[in-house]
Amino acid sequence: MSASLHRSGIPVHGRVPKYYAVKALILDEIAHLGVGAPLPPERDLAGRFNVARSTVRQAISELVVEGRLTAQQGRGTFVARPKLIHPLSLTSYTEALRALGYEPSRIVVALEEVPADDEIAAALEIAPGAAIVRLERVLRADGEPLGLETTYLPARRYPALLERFDPSGSLYRFMQDELGVVWAEATERIETALASPREALLLQTNPALPMLLMQRLSRDPAGIPIERVRSLYRGDRIGFETRLITQR
Amino acid sequence: MSASLHRSGIPVHGRVPKYYAVKALILDEIAHLGVGAPLPPERDLAGRFNVARSTVRQAISELVVEGRLTAQQGRGTFVARPKLIHPLSLTSYTEALRALGYEPSRIVVALEEVPADDEIAAALEIAPGAAIVRLERVLRADGEPLGLETTYLPARRYPALLERFDPSGSLYRFMQDELGVVWAEATERIETALASPREALLLQTNPALPMLLMQRLSRDPAGIPIERVRSLYRGDRIGFETRLITQR
Repeated sequence: MSASLHRSGIPVHGRVPKYYAVKALILDEIAHLGVGAPLPPERDLAGRFNVARSTVRQAISELVVEGRLTAQQGRGTFVARPKLIHPLSLTSYTEALRALGYEPSRIVVALEEVPADDEIAAALEIAPGAAIVRLERVLRADGEPLGLETTYLPARRYPALLERFDPSGSLYRFMQDELGVVWAEATERIETALASPREALLLQTNPALPMLLMQRLSRDPAGIPIERVRSLYRGDRIGFETRLITQR
Repeated sequence: MSASLHRSGIPVHGRVPKYYAVKALILDEIAHLGVGAPLPPERDLAGRFNVARSTVRQAISELVVEGRLTAQQGRGTFVARPKLIHPLSLTSYTEALRALGYEPSRIVVALEEVPADDEIAAALEIAPGAAIVRLERVLRADGEPLGLETTYLPARRYPALLERFDPSGSLYRFMQDELGVVWAEATERIETALASPREALLLQTNPALPMLLMQRLSRDPAGIPIERVRSLYRGDRIGFETRLITQR
C-alpha cells in the first residue's frame, strides 16, 4: 500500500539476550499456573529451558520487579495478583479501593505536630516554622502494603485534627464531614523513585524495587492550600489511570 | 498541644545504612557543584567520607537511577539536569516541550502497516487482523532520548497517514490540521516497567533503570477510538504532572 520505514535511523542490533527469552517462557508458565500458584524451582526451570540457573534467576528477578511474580522469603516464588489500577482523582483512598473490590486499611506511623520546613511552608503558603500536622500512614489493600502516604496540613487552619481525627480512618471523609473542608482541585506530580531503607521496611519491600512517587497539593474553592501529600507506591503492586479531556 | 502518636503500630528499626548516609553527603556535594559538573572520583569521595569505595559506588548508582547524576561511559559521572516535568494532557509532545523550553525532536524507528493483534483490535474496536498503522519513534528533548512511543491507528480510517505524514513531525498536528481529526478524550494508564533490551538500546539506557509506562486510548467526540499509544519514558529523566478537579 505504501512505504514502510523499518528501523530507519537507529541501528537496533538483533540478538535477544538469553535471560529475556527465558522471561517470555516463564510468562507462558505464569499464564498456565494462575494467581497464587508456586513457580517451579529454579533448577527445574533451568533444566527444562536448558540454561544456567543464574539466567533463570535474572529472569525471575525482573518478573518480581514487574509485579508478575512475588518472592516470599523462605517460602519461594509465587504468581502475583494483577496490579491494582487506581483512579487518579480526588476520591478518598477508602472509597476508590472499595469500588475496586479491595478492602482498604491503614497503619498509622505518625500523627504529630511539627514546625514546617521551608519547602512545606512555601507549598502551604504559611510562614516557615509555623506548626503543621504531619500524618504518615501505610496504605494497605487486603492487608498488603501498597504505599506510604505522608500528609502535611497547616495546624492553625484545622485545630480539630490532632484532637478528634481517628488516624486509621479516612482523612478526606473526616475533613469534609466534620470540618466542612471542600476540595476543589489539586496538582499531582508523578515520577519514579527509590525507597529509602526506612520506607522499604515500612512497605515490606526492597529498596531496589521501582516506586511511583506522587506529590499532591490540594486547594479549596478559594485557592487556599489544604494539604501537601507525598505518597510512595510500590511499582510492582499498583498503577494509576486518569481520563484526559481536551481543554479548549 | 495534643497527643503525638509516633511510630506506633510498626517497628521501624533505627540505623541508617552507610550507603544511604553517603547518598545524603553526595547530594550536598551535588547542590554545590551545579548541573553538568563532574563528580569527584570515587576514591576521593571514599577517602573524604571515610567509607569503602563500594559504599560510594552504591550511593552513586542510586543517584543515577534517581536522575540526580548521569554516568557517561568512559567519561565519568556528572551532575544531571533536573527531571523534565511534562503535563499529562492531550497536548502534542512538540508543543508541550517547547512550552517547557526544550527543543523536541524524534527519531523514527518504524512506520508500517501491519495486521492488528487481538488486544490492539479490541482497543481500537476493529476486527482482529484488520490493517493498522504502527508508528514507533524515540522522543528526544535537546537531543537526549526521553521516551519510546508506539502509536497504533486503524489504517482504514486514516488512509492518508502512510502516504502523506512526515513521521519526524507532530502526529497530532498532522491529524488535526490535515485530516480534521478531533481529540475529545483519552484514558491514560501510568505504571512502572522495565525496558526490554531492545527498548533500552533505543533509549540509550540500561534495562535495570525504572521506566514510566504510559498507555493511552484516545477517542473522538463520537466516542470512536482514534489511537492506542504505548509510551515508555526514562524514569530518571522525566516526570508527569496533572491537575485534578473534583467531580460532583
